[in-house]
Amino acid sequence: MSNVKLAVIFYSMGGTNLQLAKWAEEGAREAGADVRVLKVQELAPESVVQGNEVWKRTTEAMKDIPVVTSDDLEWADAIIFSVPTRFGNMPSQMKQFLDTQGGLWATGKTVNKVVSAMTSAQNAHGGQEATILSLYTSMMHWGAIIVPPGYTDPVLFGAGGNPYGTSVSVGEDGKMKDAAQAEPAVKHQAKRTVMVAEWVKKANQ
Amino acid sequence: MSNVKLAVIFYSMGGTNLQLAKWAEEGAREAGADVRVLKVQELAPESVVQGNEVWKRTTEAMKDIPVVTSDDLEWADAIIFSVPTRFGNMPSQMKQFLDTQGGLWATGKTVNKVVSAMTSAQNAHGGQEATILSLYTSMMHWGAIIVPPGYTDPVLFGAGGNPYGTSVSVGEDGKMKDAAQAEPAVKHQAKRTVMVAEWVKKANQ
Amino acid sequence: MSNVKLAVIFYSMGGTNLQLAKWAEEGAREAGADVRVLKVQELAPESVVQGNEVWKRTTEAMKDIPVVTSDDLEWADAIIFSVPTRFGNMPSQMKQFLDTQGGLWATGKTVNKVVSAMTSAQNAHGGQEATILSLYTSMMHWGAIIVPPGYTDPVLFGAGGNPYGTSVSVGEDGKMKDAAQAEPAVKHQAKRTVMVAEWVKKANQ
Amino acid sequence: MSNVKLAVIFYSMGGTNLQLAKWAEEGAREAGADVRVLKVQELAPESVVQGNEVWKRTTEAMKDIPVVTSDDLEWADAIIFSVPTRFGNMPSQMKQFLDTQGGLWATGKTVNKVVSAMTSAQNAHGGQEATILSLYTSMMHWGAIIVPPGYTDPVLFGAGGNPYGTSVSVGEDGKMKDAAQAEPAVKHQAKRTVMVAEWVKKANQ
Repeated sequence: MSNVKLAVIFYSMGGTNLQLAKWAEEGAREAGADVRVLKVQELAPESVVQGNEVWKRTTEAMKDIPVVTSDDLEWADAIIFSVPTRFGNMPSQMKQFLDTQGGLWATGKTVNKVVSAMTSAQNAHGGQEATILSLYTSMMHWGAIIVPPGYTDPVLFGAGGNPYGTSVSVGEDGKMKDAAQAEPAVKHQAKRTVMVAEWVKKANQ
Repeated sequence: MSNVKLAVIFYSMGGTNLQLAKWAEEGAREAGADVRVLKVQELAPESVVQGNEVWKRTTEAMKDIPVVTSDDLEWADAIIFSVPTRFGNMPSQMKQFLDTQGGLWATGKTVNKVVSAMTSAQNAHGGQEATILSLYTSMMHWGAIIVPPGYTDPVLFGAGGNPYGTSVSVGEDGKMKDAAQAEPAVKHQAKRTVMVAEWVKKANQ
Repeated sequence: MSNVKLAVIFYSMGGTNLQLAKWAEEGAREAGADVRVLKVQELAPESVVQGNEVWKRTTEAMKDIPVVTSDDLEWADAIIFSVPTRFGNMPSQMKQFLDTQGGLWATGKTVNKVVSAMTSAQNAHGGQEATILSLYTSMMHWGAIIVPPGYTDPVLFGAGGNPYGTSVSVGEDGKMKDAAQAEPAVKHQAKRTVMVAEWVKKANQ
Repeated sequence: MSNVKLAVIFYSMGGTNLQLAKWAEEGAREAGADVRVLKVQELAPESVVQGNEVWKRTTEAMKDIPVVTSDDLEWADAIIFSVPTRFGNMPSQMKQFLDTQGGLWATGKTVNKVVSAMTSAQNAHGGQEATILSLYTSMMHWGAIIVPPGYTDPVLFGAGGNPYGTSVSVGEDGKMKDAAQAEPAVKHQAKRTVMVAEWVKKANQ
């Protein structure tokens, strides 16, 4: 059997979700998956991005990461989303990517993707739960199989115990808080996603 | 491999969710599953139930259906919930059943259950979506694998196209509207749930 | 006391939410409000819009409607949102508008806006509830006062009884179903929103 | 004008939400409200309660607090709910109270209540957001006016910045974490609720 194909699709302005995506990649690779880390298309004008030191630096750090396309979705057995919250919901950049997949959706090609999601916010309770749940709601429209981490491993408690998906807070300095706890939680979530995708894949071969 | 074990857990006051549960049972049996149809414990006093003609009749119709226990959850590979909406959320009777499963949950025995849900309301947009989503949110805490129907079959469009789970409306006469469309949608949802549970089960044997 | 200032902010591709917005405008004017009907900026390339007959016609019909700005939000005492569902969530175009109001939000100028929302979908249960709830969740981040219609008037039952906000379905011909029932529901919702905004405004003068 | 009448309705097993309710009471009194602190009826058998040392102690501490009735809802201009999370949703005890208010609801007596909510969980991201949102969804069915705190005061950031309502975590010792930050957040939320209720009340006299 070929390996599980995992697309880690993220949006990052300050670097946090880029980091979460990389940890997910590492975890999934350790579990034997083929992984593509993919960013969504930026909607902000280039001048705005360049005018913000942190945003500019993150953009520079992501310059070799490909922009996700419908082909990546078709390729993938599993998807992990990683986005910062924007008012308790995914950012418009991710929403725009989802909204433009109507063609793929209409032909049934989004069905049975194994999906999981992660997020970040400035505050401890800053919309993390609502943001992940918003992604899962959309994935239900896609006919996806949704695999939140729940409390399937003790490392999840260390990371704040968000059963919907790993979620982190970001300090005023723009740095992720409790990164040492978040890393194993993300890796566990990635491995669990790959494991369930493997079950689905094996049965369909 | 032994058959998939499916628990159809429902609450019904007027008979609609009892009917949905029976259709799920039929669909699942056709897909080869071992099925237990199970009701949750009533919280209303017997006198209140007996004082309402419809409620009394439904209770009478369900008298041979066992009350669900933790053992049923442990037994099950997959669960289909069926509940009427109560103010955009599951009824307290179902919530009480979930809340008292803390012991099972704490020992990890709810993990990897394959879950799907159905609902009914008086109005066409009377909280059906919110009610099903409330069940899935709780199931994420249980480490479940969530399998909504999405738009995986054309019969779903006939039934109002609720991608979260089959949902119906109930007329002022207490009868389910568009039952002829709901029945195949429920059966499809049940078969899909059993199918995914089979994948999970096969991989774990 | 000056009149309540209401911003009706909508996104429309097929004309349904343009129609809902106009009904809201009429209802609010009858209740004595100053109303601005405002569209959000399109994100799709002009060529895509022009290549779709319906989308092109709607765009033409909206050409004199101004694109909403932060100034409109600052001006408004109340906001009614109207959007089609996109996978159980607001469309990216609306999300992009919200996401770019961080400046207004950070200065507290979104606080105490009186907010209500409406939606449409292809199917009867096609994400209408989830879409309206997604808007309210974001509005909670804004410190808004949220005023769903509930079941405050019998006309709401005729329109499918969505207590979160008026919601309609769209036929395969692209036409709104049950428009005769939707119109009074929208007008009631608009009047209720204006009424509550008036209470808030009066107390703050 | 008579004072705003506020019902603080809570459920508590370990004492945390009892404490949150008392802080809300204090804050609301400082804002000039008439306050009733009210518990919901326990559903667990007395023997189970007595067999758990913490639960028993909390029950003892609440013995003089009246059980909420429909009359309290009718009396109230505003309601603050306070509940622990149970799998990302309100506990069945609170749900049972809401579900049995159908009579009040059907006569329109729940309309225009000004509502806000608070919560607690074991983990930092243990369902707090989802639990508060579940309460607001039900309140939309009641025709309530929903007043989450948003980010209307700097004290909210200290308390984890949950814009939906104050939320706390509970340590393994059963004690509320960061109580010093939670207290002013609860009091601010209570005062804001009373303030908006005052606007509504004034306009209706």
